[in-house]
Amino acid sequence: MMNCKSELLNNLVEKFKSLPGVGEKAAWKMAFHILNLPKDVVADFANVVVQAAQKIKKCEVCGNFTEDDLCYLCVDDTRDKTVVCVVQNMKDLLAFERTNGYCGVYHVLGGLLSPMDDIGPEDIGISKLLKRIKDSEISEVIMATGPTVEGEATAAYVSRLLKPVGIRVTRLAYGLPVGSSLEYTDDITLRAALTGRLDI
Amino acid sequence: MMNCKSELLNNLVEKFKSLPGVGEKAAWKMAFHILNLPKDVVADFANVVVQAAQKIKKCEVCGNFTEDDLCYLCVDDTRDKTVVCVVQNMKDLLAFERTNGYCGVYHVLGGLLSPMDDIGPEDIGISKLLKRIKDSEISEVIMATGPTVEGEATAAYVSRLLKPVGIRVTRLAYGLPVGSSLEYTDDITLRAALTGRLDI
Repeated sequence: MMNCKSELLNNLVEKFKSLPGVGEKAAWKMAFHILNLPKDVVADFANVVVQAAQKIKKCEVCGNFTEDDLCYLCVDDTRDKTVVCVVQNMKDLLAFERTNGYCGVYHVLGGLLSPMDDIGPEDIGISKLLKRIKDSEISEVIMATGPTVEGEATAAYVSRLLKPVGIRVTRLAYGLPVGSSLEYTDDITLRAALTGRLDI
Repeated sequence: MMNCKSELLNNLVEKFKSLPGVGEKAAWKMAFHILNLPKDVVADFANVVVQAAQKIKKCEVCGNFTEDDLCYLCVDDTRDKTVVCVVQNMKDLLAFERTNGYCGVYHVLGGLLSPMDDIGPEDIGISKLLKRIKDSEISEVIMATGPTVEGEATAAYVSRLLKPVGIRVTRLAYGLPVGSSLEYTDDITLRAALTGRLDI
């Protein structure tokens, strides 16, 4: 822990340390970087941070970050509004968009069910998802919440609620990553690949 | 490279990427962190950044970062003003302060001589250092610019200018790091330790 006797500089370092993945040394590096920048560049930096926090909100329909009431995916008429892909966060949404292989819409939960961390259905807006599904013409819900304990639990929970309503609920396929080697694949993935085998 | 079609969000990510040591993934993580924070916390973050850039300047005497005209070390009457330790930057100054073993004052260059990067004596304010030394009662200049090519070159350059004026110029001792193992010490350090041997 360094102390430079300038409260403002120490404060600046503390602010950078509050960012995810930034430790003591990196925070000092960032602070010195800021002090060596022209004042207008720093003002621009701070302005973008404030503007982003003020203007970027969650899409009223799907929860994706957007500057308007509805995100660009929800207002896009070429997207199939009857298929909803449920993801944990916007990063996962962007990952699907990068594949260029999905033309439905999304629902961003903002988290996963995790009793250990005291995160229940209300914390991730499950009721908002159910309301959306009941209010619109949706034929399939893809639970793309990831192959972790929390991801599986969230998928199972939503599926249990939607099955009785007669909506098709699917999850992503588990199996071998494309280009991987059988030899180094872990046992659970290999078993999943075997169980999920397809006719060729 | 991700693209979320929100210009403001992409801009926010770009700003974070401009910080030292922050790549694409870390910048997105920081951006989402900011979007999930309460607005007043973000405003406070931005405010500290702007305030720091506006109010923190370089000490008129030694070049250390300070909120006043002179830094806390230069106004401290208990420090020996006749011994000046020349360092590359404020980080190195803070490293010496942490040792609690130095009671002279400092001169922060803000860089090192490096013809490869087109950094000459004027870029690191050598003339300001010479003026300071000529204008005040200084008996010893410690060149603590580090055991690198640039550090040595800077030390040699300043020493060549000061020797004729009759001022004692010293450099840090090279040798074994305390607590290190002889076996794993590199050859150059070991030779330096041998050359710089002291009577016991």
